[in-house]
Amino acid sequence: MNQQASPYFRPVIALMTDFGLADGDVGVMKGVIAGICPNVHIIDITHDVDPQNIASGAWILASAYRYFPKKTVFVCVVDPGVGSSRRVIAVHAGDWFFVGPDNGLFSYVLAEQTIQAVVVLSNPAYQLPQVSATFHGRDIFAPAGAYLARGITLFELGPQIDAATLQRIDIGPPERKGTQIDAHIIHVDRFGNLITSIPLTLVPELFSAEQAEQTMRIFFSTRNIVVDKRRRFFAEGPTDGEAFIYGDSSGYVGIAVRNGNAAKMLEVGFGTSITLLTQDAR
Amino acid sequence: MNQQASPYFRPVIALMTDFGLADGDVGVMKGVIAGICPNVHIIDITHDVDPQNIASGAWILASAYRYFPKKTVFVCVVDPGVGSSRRVIAVHAGDWFFVGPDNGLFSYVLAEQTIQAVVVLSNPAYQLPQVSATFHGRDIFAPAGAYLARGITLFELGPQIDAATLQRIDIGPPERKGTQIDAHIIHVDRFGNLITSIPLTLVPELFSAEQAEQTMRIFFSTRNIVVDKRRRFFAEGPTDGEAFIYGDSSGYVGIAVRNGNAAKMLEVGFGTSITLLTQDAR
Amino acid sequence: MNQQASPYFRPVIALMTDFGLADGDVGVMKGVIAGICPNVHIIDITHDVDPQNIASGAWILASAYRYFPKKTVFVCVVDPGVGSSRRVIAVHAGDWFFVGPDNGLFSYVLAEQTIQAVVVLSNPAYQLPQVSATFHGRDIFAPAGAYLARGITLFELGPQIDAATLQRIDIGPPERKGTQIDAHIIHVDRFGNLITSIPLTLVPELFSAEQAEQTMRIFFSTRNIVVDKRRRFFAEGPTDGEAFIYGDSSGYVGIAVRNGNAAKMLEVGFGTSITLLTQDAR
Repeated sequence: MNQQASPYFRPVIALMTDFGLADGDVGVMKGVIAGICPNVHIIDITHDVDPQNIASGAWILASAYRYFPKKTVFVCVVDPGVGSSRRVIAVHAGDWFFVGPDNGLFSYVLAEQTIQAVVVLSNPAYQLPQVSATFHGRDIFAPAGAYLARGITLFELGPQIDAATLQRIDIGPPERKGTQIDAHIIHVDRFGNLITSIPLTLVPELFSAEQAEQTMRIFFSTRNIVVDKRRRFFAEGPTDGEAFIYGDSSGYVGIAVRNGNAAKMLEVGFGTSITLLTQDAR
Repeated sequence: MNQQASPYFRPVIALMTDFGLADGDVGVMKGVIAGICPNVHIIDITHDVDPQNIASGAWILASAYRYFPKKTVFVCVVDPGVGSSRRVIAVHAGDWFFVGPDNGLFSYVLAEQTIQAVVVLSNPAYQLPQVSATFHGRDIFAPAGAYLARGITLFELGPQIDAATLQRIDIGPPERKGTQIDAHIIHVDRFGNLITSIPLTLVPELFSAEQAEQTMRIFFSTRNIVVDKRRRFFAEGPTDGEAFIYGDSSGYVGIAVRNGNAAKMLEVGFGTSITLLTQDAR
Repeated sequence: MNQQASPYFRPVIALMTDFGLADGDVGVMKGVIAGICPNVHIIDITHDVDPQNIASGAWILASAYRYFPKKTVFVCVVDPGVGSSRRVIAVHAGDWFFVGPDNGLFSYVLAEQTIQAVVVLSNPAYQLPQVSATFHGRDIFAPAGAYLARGITLFELGPQIDAATLQRIDIGPPERKGTQIDAHIIHVDRFGNLITSIPLTLVPELFSAEQAEQTMRIFFSTRNIVVDKRRRFFAEGPTDGEAFIYGDSSGYVGIAVRNGNAAKMLEVGFGTSITLLTQDAR
């Protein structure tokens, strides 16, 4: 257990679930982890993933994992298939470890990072003695993550499987057809900002000084509205409550209202289809 | 302070309150704890216990405490009587310590574990210098828990009292009269699953293969509905949104809807009386 | 890095934001911190400050910071001006450090503590390599706090500035004109208790035994109601649901309803103007 050579070092486990914080389930997972790896530092990404919404959880994880220290173990549970034949896995991808159900929750990570190895969590020595049919977060994922953080190798958890067999959901990125990008709202944040599935790298002209005069417009499939202002940060937005396009810190194109809630004002939510036109199409 | 012999060891304090997370009160308790026991690992069970609902808090604690490491100190505050003459106590039960008001919050723990000792928290040396009338979580319970985690003995906190004098609430378990069990909903979880007050051990035939053909039905006092399907896990449930009986991971009989919210669909909540019939009563 | 001389010591970073817990942003800040200062103890004050409400955030911080250990680094982000020309600062005040935007969020701290030094966070060596225009919590404040916790001096973060130039909001305390104090509701807590902007020290007669017979009344600008009962703690309140005046544990005058929600019952919220009369004005 070389990584524990210094008492100042603490292995990090990051948790993401759709369990909410009202039930005690997240606390129970942390109790299990602390019993196995006493010097662990547990960090919550969020436990308010929209219940059973794998696509939403996958995106939130994607927006977060790069900012964690190398060797962080991510224990992620958005798992409508708990107890069924869906596989339970641990993935070593890039510099991090990911533990959870094989249902597409790690789709962005798998697409963005080099996959070092994937194993199925079948070794009962690294599970709780009794495994329930409905709470694998407590019985399988928390112990697996804690043992990894304590220093066992990935391969002690179970047999290696081929990464090509893993479940993946469609994560885009959307295709750019000349001046048009068809995409959707992938996240609505606490302030009501609408985050689209369009990576900023797909529209390099968004904040290019040369093209500041060029029109850029976003249309919504559900509403007869157009957002055509661009701003670099919120306080630069129009003071009349008009929505504007900005570059979200997650690395995706966003839509916001200064000192307001774009989702409520525009009546647009998760999953809404949008179209971005990058120049005047009149 | 033998338990701190290794720098890799960190004493665990688990918190459960009805304070919510919006006010800063939980943060203040943690600040107090960190000042007294710098190498503590603080874990939240939940802070969203239904305000002043002692029965609900007691059950959530009961579903959680067994999964924490030995010697964990549970600081629990659901305390409508704060400032009144209700006692403030610390309990050594089983392998754990419990700190909080003497109002029934520890009823399950006291019923399930061997009570080693109980003391009243009267020693001002282990309280904040000024004790308010309305925030004993900060002024009495957090310091007491932190000093226990740091290694003082239970008896330094105050004089021992007789466990028989502790307040207890009626926690059942319900009586089984042949094929009939009268019980109630003890918890509604984040997914809307309804957890009943019936321990799974009271209905061993629930998932016995021999009795798969036997009828098992749950009736609600408030609604003219019957739940008579049984499933081992959520993804096995009917796809048409029909509710089913399952064995919850807390160790109690539950009622769920696959990919749905049973509480909303059945319009049933905390406290609703139910009757479970374990065979066809037609 | 003298403060890390013992492996049992862990520097504390306390976080307060208006980010909520659903988005993963707070988790990302913690990931950044853990990468820079591996043995840190991160404590959440709250992340549910009313979005972009600087006055509310300032008060919550004021009610909390004194209870944290000396040298705690408070990283506070309620920052509607993120990305604009507002300054980003670190303050050494009293025994603590405060990191965040210069927008009035630290007004109580600056008024209550000796200001040792203030710096602008301009040294890129203590920021993330890429600084976004919309998430300085991640890119500037979290790293600055983490490096402070790790042991750098305040002055390595950037040049010192004059504390007299810092933004401050009007935090009162309200003026007492004989028997009258004009104030407002500064916080509504989880239980619906209304906390006023009146420090308890301004009305020493509130719970003086000699003046128990004296009338004390609170009027609301928005409602034709009067609260004129006084109680020391909640369980002492009238059982008929009538509101009463009490001394809140934050050090301010509060208004509560026993086993009830004063904000809902009185239909009064954050910001409402009130008048307290300390004797019968008939």
